Amino acid sequence: MSLSTAMNLNQQLDCLFDPRSVAVIGASSNMVKWGFHILNLLLVKGGREVYAINRNEPEVLGLKTYRSVADVPGPVDVAVITVVYHDIPAVMEDCVQKGVKGAVIISGGLAETGEEGARVEREVVEIARRGGIRLVGPNCMGHFDTSSGLYTVPYLPPSTKGTLSLIAQSGNASQAIVHAASERGLGFSKYISSGNEADLHFEDYLEYLAQDEQTEIILGYVEGFREGRRFFELAKEITKKKPVVILKAGRTEAGKKAAQSHTASLAGSDAICEAAFKQCGVIRVADISELIDVALALVGQPLPRGRRVAVFSTGGGPAVMAADALMRHGLELPELSPKTMDKLNATFTPRWSRSNPIESGGDPFDHPCLWAVLEDDNIDAALIINAVAVARNYAWWVQLPPSLNDAIEQYIVAEEETEVEHINNLLELMHKYQKPVMIANIGIPSAREGVVYDRLEQTHLVPYLTQERAAGALAHLVEYSEYLGVARGNG
Amino acid sequence: MSLSTAMNLNQQLDCLFDPRSVAVIGASSNMVKWGFHILNLLLVKGGREVYAINRNEPEVLGLKTYRSVADVPGPVDVAVITVVYHDIPAVMEDCVQKGVKGAVIISGGLAETGEEGARVEREVVEIARRGGIRLVGPNCMGHFDTSSGLYTVPYLPPSTKGTLSLIAQSGNASQAIVHAASERGLGFSKYISSGNEADLHFEDYLEYLAQDEQTEIILGYVEGFREGRRFFELAKEITKKKPVVILKAGRTEAGKKAAQSHTASLAGSDAICEAAFKQCGVIRVADISELIDVALALVGQPLPRGRRVAVFSTGGGPAVMAADALMRHGLELPELSPKTMDKLNATFTPRWSRSNPIESGGDPFDHPCLWAVLEDDNIDAALIINAVAVARNYAWWVQLPPSLNDAIEQYIVAEEETEVEHINNLLELMHKYQKPVMIANIGIPSAREGVVYDRLEQTHLVPYLTQERAAGALAHLVEYSEYLGVARGNG
Repeated sequence: MSLSTAMNLNQQLDCLFDPRSVAVIGASSNMVKWGFHILNLLLVKGGREVYAINRNEPEVLGLKTYRSVADVPGPVDVAVITVVYHDIPAVMEDCVQKGVKGAVIISGGLAETGEEGARVEREVVEIARRGGIRLVGPNCMGHFDTSSGLYTVPYLPPSTKGTLSLIAQSGNASQAIVHAASERGLGFSKYISSGNEADLHFEDYLEYLAQDEQTEIILGYVEGFREGRRFFELAKEITKKKPVVILKAGRTEAGKKAAQSHTASLAGSDAICEAAFKQCGVIRVADISELIDVALALVGQPLPRGRRVAVFSTGGGPAVMAADALMRHGLELPELSPKTMDKLNATFTPRWSRSNPIESGGDPFDHPCLWAVLEDDNIDAALIINAVAVARNYAWWVQLPPSLNDAIEQYIVAEEETEVEHINNLLELMHKYQKPVMIANIGIPSAREGVVYDRLEQTHLVPYLTQERAAGALAHLVEYSEYLGVARGNG
Repeated sequence: MSLSTAMNLNQQLDCLFDPRSVAVIGASSNMVKWGFHILNLLLVKGGREVYAINRNEPEVLGLKTYRSVADVPGPVDVAVITVVYHDIPAVMEDCVQKGVKGAVIISGGLAETGEEGARVEREVVEIARRGGIRLVGPNCMGHFDTSSGLYTVPYLPPSTKGTLSLIAQSGNASQAIVHAASERGLGFSKYISSGNEADLHFEDYLEYLAQDEQTEIILGYVEGFREGRRFFELAKEITKKKPVVILKAGRTEAGKKAAQSHTASLAGSDAICEAAFKQCGVIRVADISELIDVALALVGQPLPRGRRVAVFSTGGGPAVMAADALMRHGLELPELSPKTMDKLNATFTPRWSRSNPIESGGDPFDHPCLWAVLEDDNIDAALIINAVAVARNYAWWVQLPPSLNDAIEQYIVAEEETEVEHINNLLELMHKYQKPVMIANIGIPSAREGVVYDRLEQTHLVPYLTQERAAGALAHLVEYSEYLGVARGNG
């Protein structure tokens, strides 16, 4: 019996995420090939022994190559395989001979393409099982772990470490998710492009991430579950401690058909899936934007205790659209308490809207105003429109005389100081009252640079791009909160 | 009888959009005031006499000021008014005395704030009517005309000339719309922030834009119609020649209440509005993103003759999500004809998906492939995912050895040449077969610079940010097409 069969699932995945050494089988000097990019990233990231396996080139990226993984002098914990599909069985035999513990099969052309590919895939799994090798993929884009510094992916956005982990049954979708997350300042702990899931299933990774201390929120892109019942039982336990957010694709007939041809997965009935997710507390999203919106809210916001929202806006039109967006997502805009009205009357000029949405014509982000509203027992959460991180975009107010440059810069710097102070106050209030405060900028867009944006990014309060998206994310927080019993139910 | 009362509506609006001279009443040296920014933009844009009216400062932005518009030596066609609300009646008397033909009242504090403001607003309208002055606003953000070069707005994104015109009952919403459009390379002919519509109504601007030769597509942000019946009759005629796309806010109870306090407008029943829009061929959108998505499609795409869509994708996951998105928007993914299948079998490796969505593992943007599909009588439109304008993002494939810089640049330049050629072929095919082809990039995002993006922007083919949004825009094209009788109806 090999060492790895004696290991339990967690130990096997520990090894896959933090091997002592990695061999790239199919390493290449051709920079349009993934065997080039994966090897390059492994070398750049460093931290472990890396071997290049190639039958034709003596050297790749400055590294001496071996004709087979079996020829490598030291031990090889993990093999990354990028060779053409019909060569994989032979390569897997070499891996077994070498005592490899885990393999990441990047190559496609297997079960997703039809009977011939499915036959090769079954053969590869049989060989691997015989040698106690656990498999990621095939037909995938690798995996990574920002703590161990292992990356078997071909490309990498400038993502940072973070508390999200992602399991995705599509490499392209997962790349889009990682990119979109990093655009919003969100970072990852672990990432798995699970591909055809010939050996390790979505459910295996899920079980592993449940006990992973670096993972606080689990994201998934799913076309079909191999072990639906196991997923349900796992999710039911996990969602009590960590949010699980899933983009289930293949919802429609055309989508299901496409999923079948993509990862050979059976998408199943969407209605059953919808009901099961609801029952086990999984947050279901419709597309990648919504997935990232919810992740941002889960990372940055406390869980609300209800669905009653106060809106602050610097503009009337945005206030109307915000009210529409919140209502459409099943949230409520209650009246403010008489006590809060008194406080706001004392703060604003008489022209303020005198109701919720709060449209003051002034700065709704002002401390006394926010304090009054977040203290109000009628209010569970707030949405702030067009009030944060806009000063730096003064430069967008084009074509001012150059003689004013200094005055403008002074104005911006002073505004930014005030805004950072407001953000710090906001954070204090959010956590004191345990009420989420979503920010959306739809007019002059939020500047993506400067001290204000930096502070927003650090605190995971970067503005949503529309009220619609902020409202959608908040609605998911409320539903999850109700599921957990943190919030009282609707009505 | 003054000159302007003798003018018809078109002549009055012609004058408002292209006056010989403009006076800013409330011109200011204080750069946090709109009286500063509006005057500055007028001066920068030039092309006509500009006067600054200010009682306290002898000079503003290097311009000698006058205490009243009546003191200006030359004629004044248009006055832009930014003074505090209770000073407007006196200022309007001065305008009448001076023979001003049109006034843009930027100031708020009128009907939208309650009875006192409503009284002042009525007084201002009475004075203006007496003098034959037509009014834009009050409580608005001005107007502009890229042909005449007149801008009475405080801020301006780097927008270009174009064929869109916008009428908006919210200044903040309109700013967001103009900004979002310019981000997608879309330009404007005319823009009106209509505010409280105390005199000129949405319907007046609509009638004017209907006959305006520079306007090909009319966009609207509406909270409530002052003349619902007139809007309906106008729209019914206009939509036969020009698309009208409207974001009707105040759809929900909370939204309606907010609209009332914003522009004193009564939002009315949303169901009636929905039915009326359908009957008169108005394209209704739910938010600003959707408004811009549809505008982009209308500018760049031929009208489809049906709802049967072919999907091209470089990735399986995105293909599944695209199929879902199209189905959710009521579109269809038919089988390809046997003839098309033969052609694709001859083009692709045997691993291609062999159905719609077309997932080839190769470049779906390749000419023979696109040609075969667009020629297919089973297909009315196409959606291309993740295949265009991605080469320049090779740089995003981080941390390649510097020794490869030259090779990478060469690779990118060659890829870009091919892509530009593909775009040119695509345009030819789109117009030959009169079939829209939407592009969406969701993985590695489209580079926003370089020859490929420039070409996409010129041809109004810039990629949609998600398949969902591309599908939504295409669905609106199909509905409009069916309304016009260009497309056969659904089913």
